[in-house]
Amino acid sequence: MVARPCFRIVVAASALLALSARVALVHAQPVTSEQADTQRIEDLVIANHILADQNILDAWGHVSIRSARNPKRFYLSRSLAPGLVKAADIMEYDEDSKPVDPGGRALYLERFIHGEVYRARPDVQAVVHSHSPAVIPFSMTGVPLRMAFLLGAFLGSGAPVFEIRGAAGNASNMQVTDQSRGAALAKRLGSAEIVLMRGHGDTVVGPTIKVAVARAVYAEANARIQMDAIRLGRPVYFTDGEAATLKKMEDEERSVIRPWELWKAQAQRRMAAP
Amino acid sequence: MVARPCFRIVVAASALLALSARVALVHAQPVTSEQADTQRIEDLVIANHILADQNILDAWGHVSIRSARNPKRFYLSRSLAPGLVKAADIMEYDEDSKPVDPGGRALYLERFIHGEVYRARPDVQAVVHSHSPAVIPFSMTGVPLRMAFLLGAFLGSGAPVFEIRGAAGNASNMQVTDQSRGAALAKRLGSAEIVLMRGHGDTVVGPTIKVAVARAVYAEANARIQMDAIRLGRPVYFTDGEAATLKKMEDEERSVIRPWELWKAQAQRRMAAP
Amino acid sequence: MVARPCFRIVVAASALLALSARVALVHAQPVTSEQADTQRIEDLVIANHILADQNILDAWGHVSIRSARNPKRFYLSRSLAPGLVKAADIMEYDEDSKPVDPGGRALYLERFIHGEVYRARPDVQAVVHSHSPAVIPFSMTGVPLRMAFLLGAFLGSGAPVFEIRGAAGNASNMQVTDQSRGAALAKRLGSAEIVLMRGHGDTVVGPTIKVAVARAVYAEANARIQMDAIRLGRPVYFTDGEAATLKKMEDEERSVIRPWELWKAQAQRRMAAP
Amino acid sequence: MVARPCFRIVVAASALLALSARVALVHAQPVTSEQADTQRIEDLVIANHILADQNILDAWGHVSIRSARNPKRFYLSRSLAPGLVKAADIMEYDEDSKPVDPGGRALYLERFIHGEVYRARPDVQAVVHSHSPAVIPFSMTGVPLRMAFLLGAFLGSGAPVFEIRGAAGNASNMQVTDQSRGAALAKRLGSAEIVLMRGHGDTVVGPTIKVAVARAVYAEANARIQMDAIRLGRPVYFTDGEAATLKKMEDEERSVIRPWELWKAQAQRRMAAP
Repeated sequence: MVARPCFRIVVAASALLALSARVALVHAQPVTSEQADTQRIEDLVIANHILADQNILDAWGHVSIRSARNPKRFYLSRSLAPGLVKAADIMEYDEDSKPVDPGGRALYLERFIHGEVYRARPDVQAVVHSHSPAVIPFSMTGVPLRMAFLLGAFLGSGAPVFEIRGAAGNASNMQVTDQSRGAALAKRLGSAEIVLMRGHGDTVVGPTIKVAVARAVYAEANARIQMDAIRLGRPVYFTDGEAATLKKMEDEERSVIRPWELWKAQAQRRMAAP
Repeated sequence: MVARPCFRIVVAASALLALSARVALVHAQPVTSEQADTQRIEDLVIANHILADQNILDAWGHVSIRSARNPKRFYLSRSLAPGLVKAADIMEYDEDSKPVDPGGRALYLERFIHGEVYRARPDVQAVVHSHSPAVIPFSMTGVPLRMAFLLGAFLGSGAPVFEIRGAAGNASNMQVTDQSRGAALAKRLGSAEIVLMRGHGDTVVGPTIKVAVARAVYAEANARIQMDAIRLGRPVYFTDGEAATLKKMEDEERSVIRPWELWKAQAQRRMAAP
Repeated sequence: MVARPCFRIVVAASALLALSARVALVHAQPVTSEQADTQRIEDLVIANHILADQNILDAWGHVSIRSARNPKRFYLSRSLAPGLVKAADIMEYDEDSKPVDPGGRALYLERFIHGEVYRARPDVQAVVHSHSPAVIPFSMTGVPLRMAFLLGAFLGSGAPVFEIRGAAGNASNMQVTDQSRGAALAKRLGSAEIVLMRGHGDTVVGPTIKVAVARAVYAEANARIQMDAIRLGRPVYFTDGEAATLKKMEDEERSVIRPWELWKAQAQRRMAAP
Repeated sequence: MVARPCFRIVVAASALLALSARVALVHAQPVTSEQADTQRIEDLVIANHILADQNILDAWGHVSIRSARNPKRFYLSRSLAPGLVKAADIMEYDEDSKPVDPGGRALYLERFIHGEVYRARPDVQAVVHSHSPAVIPFSMTGVPLRMAFLLGAFLGSGAPVFEIRGAAGNASNMQVTDQSRGAALAKRLGSAEIVLMRGHGDTVVGPTIKVAVARAVYAEANARIQMDAIRLGRPVYFTDGEAATLKKMEDEERSVIRPWELWKAQAQRRMAAP
């Protein structure tokens, strides 16, 4: 009966999806840091696909998560377009952004963004670097990217912009390809949640990977709304009090459960497609 | 014969779809309010998916329908991205926006938008709250969103904007998270069909859910056309007579049968996909 | 053997697609006007789906083709979103835009656009009426839509705009819902290939349905390019000689074989999807 | 057993995909120029589909690759929308843009773009001609298209614009339909990597087809970012040193492995879909 294997594969795939959905929802019991890292790697793979689906990462950019087992380390894919990343592509990096087990694989040139941000910001559990297209004009015109709608509270009243000339000179490749450039970027980030990179893109951080992913998505959405509002008239922005209240809500993972569930379902549907 | 179950499932799914299509078309005979509510819940699920497909609702926003059985009550999903809503997620709320049977489920924080609008506007049968991206710039620049093409008659010569500071103070979370804020929003809505919410989005109402859904879609389309027209030159808008004539047509459900059928077919195709 | 019917349906569908592709390519031998009308109806169904796929027609707008058997008549779908149209939905209309055999079906309110354009323009074989969103701003700002790239030659140095107030008064529904309004629209069209309709959309004509469909698609593309160019600087348009040379090429059906084949393949793929 | 053929076809298609993926990765051993041309034709088919997927080529435009066996010749599809091109559609052209074996097939009218660019630029291995929509406004307003983000280094500080009136007179069809127009275009291109064509589109070249494809995609992305930046404020562009450093990186094929792999996977998925 030739059709049988096909049917079994479908069943197996459905079971796997159901299982992974269940795993993601069962958070209540205490987990070991080993278990936590298994979960983090699973979330990191999904985060790669979500950011590809949402048009934040295309062939470029990357997303990482800090290790729970060893908080000086982090997980990041080998050099690969995020939309193609599988669990087997995830590598562990040490605090100097060196792979623990290189295995002869090509590495992201800008992995130092991640290592240096984790070093400078113990509160950060996840980092996204992207070429978010609507954000780039704000990186090169002196017009500050700022909270322009409810979901942009992490932008505050003007996101910092990193000018790499200070760290890399006047004729660099503009990229964060070593520790010193990573440290300079982390310094410019300071205590903010996003730093724009002139003519290049941005780096977003979060207290969890779900928050970091949502911020990366909403930075782009906020930039489009802000550009439209500026072209239309004189925008009224948020009061400091409103911004602070919304920022506090936005910091908590429960504020992003709804988008994460939606985007994950969409990513899993695409990943399971033939 | 291993392939059999697969085939049967396909048949069953097709039959269900055919059935639901039939149910939606057979309106002629008198229906009890029980039957009407079954139909309303079915339409509400489809409305959630249509608004997700049309990029009006993403992870956020929600759509509700008034109960036919008990017009003080309304139906609304538990807290969930609209693109994931199934019939089992729909809950019944009373006039104070309290769930009749909470069942331990998470609720939309801004459910009070719905309850207070239904209280203030007996003519309204459905409410959509969204973060419609092209509408937001009009909520924060003083430039009124107004009818800019044939399908925007419900916008009139300038949609009202709700400034939440009056109801919630200068440092609020900007959201309609209690009855008093809901009442203030409903008051600003007045007898209009849409109210913009500063830096946040909008709320649209309708005499039927099909009309409300179409209005939510065309508010976004109208906003884009209006922005383009303003950037291009000095737009000529509609006469009061034209606006009134078109508004009268637009109020009737038969004016939206064609889009509803198309959007429903698209939503059902996506919902039935593996 | 339960799986058999499924397989046979797939085979049958593939055969049909292959057949219709073959039919479309075999043009060489002389055809009777009966055969020609069969082909025209087939092309009209595809045109509906192409214009839906290309985002020119959504729930609204319609496309028609003149009858070869009786050139005073034309074919047009019953009232239905173009993306849902099948051969069985196509109806024959007489020169007064009355259906030859109404069969109790709902009709497009603006069918008079088609009838009156066919009456006034014997050279026209197909008509598209749409709410093309980038075209609408040109209908209401006094800025003429004109040829802004190679594929916009049919726009000439400024498309005519139809102001319906002359024909329908100051408080109309803005729609071409009777013969006199249709005649007024046709008069404003004159010998042009497109007429914009203030705050509403446009009507495009062509010597074949393939040319008319391509014009409807490129009117939208041209409008976006022209808006971008106007925002960027002072556009240099085409010389009269260039425009005339390109217009002559564009009039011939062979100039649109390539897009028609592509769009048709895309439409058929979607139409055949489960 | 009726379902069998279906299953076998699926297996065969998967095997083919796996094989072609393997072929693309095994580059290490020395290849004959015959083998190289087989690979080039395979890459050319993929390039057609990538450029269609990325919305750079629609029904129009084309991409070619130089022959490795005979560098005076090049490969280019017969006249066909790029999204429909298969290996059997690829034809070999000589240095005068004449097909070596016409086989009665329709040819792209603007094939002379390719032949004359290959003649003038021995370093060029691939050529893309497109109607890239965001690039066209820069071709007709005097505002130079220039490097506005990291991936636009090949644009330098202002891309040359080809005014065809010099070669074709004041009433031409604007198209590069003979050798002399092709030579004039190649002359305007000079040593640049892109030349804009007034009111028409652009032509992009590369030292490999992967680099040329990436440039075509990033020219469009850069144009959108540059338009947005100009509308937002006064853009800060790149220093000459930065531009030179990035240009040197961008010239090398390894800089585009990541996008090519992603885009190829996406194109193959679509090509394999029913």
